Amino acid sequence: MIPKMVILLFIIFFHGSMTMASDPDPIFDFCLPSGTPSCKNSSQANVEDFVFYGIKFPGKFNRSGFSSTPVNADVFPGLNTLGISMVRADFDVGGVNVPHFHPRATEVAVVLEGKIYSGFVDTNSQIFAKVIEKGEVMVFPRGLVHFQMNVGETPATILGSFDSQNPGLMKIPAAVFGSGIKEELLEKAFGLSPEELAKLKKRHAPRRPN
Amino acid sequence: MIPKMVILLFIIFFHGSMTMASDPDPIFDFCLPSGTPSCKNSSQANVEDFVFYGIKFPGKFNRSGFSSTPVNADVFPGLNTLGISMVRADFDVGGVNVPHFHPRATEVAVVLEGKIYSGFVDTNSQIFAKVIEKGEVMVFPRGLVHFQMNVGETPATILGSFDSQNPGLMKIPAAVFGSGIKEELLEKAFGLSPEELAKLKKRHAPRRPN
Amino acid sequence: MIPKMVILLFIIFFHGSMTMASDPDPIFDFCLPSGTPSCKNSSQANVEDFVFYGIKFPGKFNRSGFSSTPVNADVFPGLNTLGISMVRADFDVGGVNVPHFHPRATEVAVVLEGKIYSGFVDTNSQIFAKVIEKGEVMVFPRGLVHFQMNVGETPATILGSFDSQNPGLMKIPAAVFGSGIKEELLEKAFGLSPEELAKLKKRHAPRRPN
Amino acid sequence: MIPKMVILLFIIFFHGSMTMASDPDPIFDFCLPSGTPSCKNSSQANVEDFVFYGIKFPGKFNRSGFSSTPVNADVFPGLNTLGISMVRADFDVGGVNVPHFHPRATEVAVVLEGKIYSGFVDTNSQIFAKVIEKGEVMVFPRGLVHFQMNVGETPATILGSFDSQNPGLMKIPAAVFGSGIKEELLEKAFGLSPEELAKLKKRHAPRRPN
Amino acid sequence: MIPKMVILLFIIFFHGSMTMASDPDPIFDFCLPSGTPSCKNSSQANVEDFVFYGIKFPGKFNRSGFSSTPVNADVFPGLNTLGISMVRADFDVGGVNVPHFHPRATEVAVVLEGKIYSGFVDTNSQIFAKVIEKGEVMVFPRGLVHFQMNVGETPATILGSFDSQNPGLMKIPAAVFGSGIKEELLEKAFGLSPEELAKLKKRHAPRRPN
Amino acid sequence: MIPKMVILLFIIFFHGSMTMASDPDPIFDFCLPSGTPSCKNSSQANVEDFVFYGIKFPGKFNRSGFSSTPVNADVFPGLNTLGISMVRADFDVGGVNVPHFHPRATEVAVVLEGKIYSGFVDTNSQIFAKVIEKGEVMVFPRGLVHFQMNVGETPATILGSFDSQNPGLMKIPAAVFGSGIKEELLEKAFGLSPEELAKLKKRHAPRRPN
Repeated sequence: MIPKMVILLFIIFFHGSMTMASDPDPIFDFCLPSGTPSCKNSSQANVEDFVFYGIKFPGKFNRSGFSSTPVNADVFPGLNTLGISMVRADFDVGGVNVPHFHPRATEVAVVLEGKIYSGFVDTNSQIFAKVIEKGEVMVFPRGLVHFQMNVGETPATILGSFDSQNPGLMKIPAAVFGSGIKEELLEKAFGLSPEELAKLKKRHAPRRPN
Repeated sequence: MIPKMVILLFIIFFHGSMTMASDPDPIFDFCLPSGTPSCKNSSQANVEDFVFYGIKFPGKFNRSGFSSTPVNADVFPGLNTLGISMVRADFDVGGVNVPHFHPRATEVAVVLEGKIYSGFVDTNSQIFAKVIEKGEVMVFPRGLVHFQMNVGETPATILGSFDSQNPGLMKIPAAVFGSGIKEELLEKAFGLSPEELAKLKKRHAPRRPN
Repeated sequence: MIPKMVILLFIIFFHGSMTMASDPDPIFDFCLPSGTPSCKNSSQANVEDFVFYGIKFPGKFNRSGFSSTPVNADVFPGLNTLGISMVRADFDVGGVNVPHFHPRATEVAVVLEGKIYSGFVDTNSQIFAKVIEKGEVMVFPRGLVHFQMNVGETPATILGSFDSQNPGLMKIPAAVFGSGIKEELLEKAFGLSPEELAKLKKRHAPRRPN
Repeated sequence: MIPKMVILLFIIFFHGSMTMASDPDPIFDFCLPSGTPSCKNSSQANVEDFVFYGIKFPGKFNRSGFSSTPVNADVFPGLNTLGISMVRADFDVGGVNVPHFHPRATEVAVVLEGKIYSGFVDTNSQIFAKVIEKGEVMVFPRGLVHFQMNVGETPATILGSFDSQNPGLMKIPAAVFGSGIKEELLEKAFGLSPEELAKLKKRHAPRRPN
Repeated sequence: MIPKMVILLFIIFFHGSMTMASDPDPIFDFCLPSGTPSCKNSSQANVEDFVFYGIKFPGKFNRSGFSSTPVNADVFPGLNTLGISMVRADFDVGGVNVPHFHPRATEVAVVLEGKIYSGFVDTNSQIFAKVIEKGEVMVFPRGLVHFQMNVGETPATILGSFDSQNPGLMKIPAAVFGSGIKEELLEKAFGLSPEELAKLKKRHAPRRPN
Repeated sequence: MIPKMVILLFIIFFHGSMTMASDPDPIFDFCLPSGTPSCKNSSQANVEDFVFYGIKFPGKFNRSGFSSTPVNADVFPGLNTLGISMVRADFDVGGVNVPHFHPRATEVAVVLEGKIYSGFVDTNSQIFAKVIEKGEVMVFPRGLVHFQMNVGETPATILGSFDSQNPGLMKIPAAVFGSGIKEELLEKAFGLSPEELAKLKKRHAPRRPN
């Protein structure tokens, strides 16, 4: 077991020293990060701190014909402590947003252009899916797996909003087959042969060391 | 141990049967209102419960050249317990969204069409305002007064999102001058003559008994 | 659009580096600010950290015959993380607490001395107002506009409590007419002539550069 | 003032009968209990729903020379969902508010009259106590044991506020010695002889079947 | 578009009538469900309401050599509003708990018996996994995919705890391949041939109409 | 009263500079403390950050025949921001866990070995207690006084879980009789003679200056 001395030092070092990270009610009008434990002095804030220009245009499609640009507190610090964020998603014809979920938020998505097969699965593996079109809204409850595919004949665009400044994004194919989970476990869990699994692992292997 | 039968009856009887009234973490995948203290049984949910069609088109402009259509849990019950909602706002040329605030949410707004003078005021009466255009995003922190005006030469549209299923909307002119606050108080608070106040009260008087 | 390089640097700089600000459940008995990311070591806390002496006497009346002294975590750091704060408000005869709201808290107010016309307006512009007297309590729900006027023949005092360590205060006259919102917008929103607006702006202009 | 009978009926009627079970962000302006899963329709609300008259006068002292009148959502339903409540506490000369705590709230207390020895104990059994006087404020962090005694020569009054609509109250002597915990456990825990324990149990036995 | 009449009726019907479901601070000591909007009267509560007997023995293994018994507010109503729940998980030799996640809670798991390969994947597809043994504890952060496999030579048991009364459980294989997501989408998302997908769908098809 | 100058300096120093401490929704996958305002970069996290080895064996019994080892964010920093923690409690034959409570969490406890008299007291001084055995679960609602005693003929072990990363622990005997509360207050509150109180104070006096 760990020597008492070490535990004691540990306690002394960390006591009351936890760095915090939460998505609750704000206690300031806003809190622009300053690199220090304090928010930037509000008198130094500028309107540009509260405007974001990064989703005026679609991003570059990935091999699934899909592109997404998050608007969270990482790229738009003005959102910090305010409990909300967005995403712009673009779909090439036939493009797919793979099954994924956001561990820390509900999403409401509005179709800006196109026809999108869109849906989610609840914890009873019940599916709720249909094709939605321009101006229609769909909600994906917090933490539930959802997915989309452009089933129209032109590119499509969706705008999503989240009730967290940093909802997180877990893409199922990469998380399950591209993260290095022990092969025996995956073969048993999905009923895959070693060859089938090898193919899936190769396809979803991370492409950057990162 | 408790017989299975009893546990089963127990589950049936109590399943999802707590009445709540708050905007916090959900405890179910979703909770469609049933008119009873319980959520509707999730096996009776349908994809249409999670899709909303009411903001495909702009609403009718009011005398300020403005129209807004809320997408909250009142009109879209699928949002219930999920902590998020939206609004579509349309502006005629020169149209104005009067100074207002949402008592229970932060808003992020994206310009879908047009050029909008848009801003908010913090609790030090410091203003953050500028003209934003198609594809640009602005955040209005929780509870702060904000406002918009179409300064372009065509109608404009904005899509707003909130981190509450029911953010509330308090329009300052109507709340202050149209609600019946004692005249002496308003005259002193704003420095208005009785005639000036009478004019403001007349203009902002409620138009329906409601 | 913003060069990728810049976005990347941005992400690296801010990743996991958001300064936090929230009003939720505490995770320590208390957390006296230390100027570092940690709370002050609790063994260095002293009873004086938890006692506040600043509302024993009324403040100086402003031109509306009103004075308020907040007891929030800024002036009483012992409240930090504890989710609560107070205010002492004094009214000269006829004194007015202008229409205002607190973006981050409900308030309960107790009359300590005097007769106060006191009320709030809900999001349907419905008013709830009456004269309350010594020992009577009124609640102003979170984020709703409220106001008070001393209608008695002696000075009056109120004690308010908030369910936030920093509820914020937004005075409507100054926020709307003293912050610099574009004149055309205000004229249209309130139905004011340029001359009427100019008078209001002059009266509510900030008196300190601040 | 409201006749005691009415208040009693009120308490009986509403006790545990709030359509609520949580203390988070409200999702309505307010939510007056209706006896149904819904809040009362807001158009039926009246200013009297938001005013409370029950703490204008001190209550009757108990044998410790102490009296407290809670102002929580049970007796003042207008507080429902609003996350805040109060208490009025009166002390005879030498009167004692026994060591107690509130399981669901922080308290800030203001001395309205008198000199009160007042303090709390943190989870390291560190004490923070001193005599506070008229107009002075002390904070008791959430869930920590605290206590008060009138050390002045006149009766004293305190007004406390809580960041919960129903903070709860756990009086240590009655909870520990008057609830029926197995004697062997209490003897060992406190180092008491059976005779000493019997005396304490007798003194703190519940006086009403309740 | 929806006729105004219908929307109006909708609003009237649902106004203030949302059934709620959340995991926040309790406002009562406890809240035993009563089938009505109120909690059961606390004087009718019994110690048996707060004790659960359902995890004394392992459940029956499924075809993956795994069994789990949830201890949430559905089966143990005493947990209602208290923000916590548990699970007992048993593993046959080689048994597998398939990749899954809990949309509404963090889990801490303690090994009671055996040697378990255990891990999770973060939103960067970074894996954190190792073999843990009797008495060792692992944490799976809220909403992240995690998994376990008995790599010892005897059956194994784990006890998990959650910071929600109803964390939810989403098993990836069934949610993705057994819920009926459009085949074209899954083939593109995972890079599967129609034959490979058919095999996966067959294996993970729901075995009960449910 | 405090000179204005001092208050002003105070405000300047603390404005926007509150160190935060809360138990709400996380905004990151996890947040390992780094000694800076930021979490440790997630790419530097290691599986060992999420595994805890400190409760494999019982601790050393105190004079009450009891030992407890907390597994909170102080000793297991991987729990930081994740809203959950645990405790291992061991009992010698006849050993006692004195009446205590956790100011910031509900606890669910599972008996791993032995027969334990276990219970809690609600805010009406109503007791809920019984003997529970191996595999049985009991819940102690947030902030309520609870207690345990080994009534079997062998040592016993319990595993408890909390819905807070740092629930806090307040042992009644030490908090009340070992913290230095004024003697007159304790004598009146409990009905003790000076001699009886002196004996209790001696027994529960802190044994280390700490």
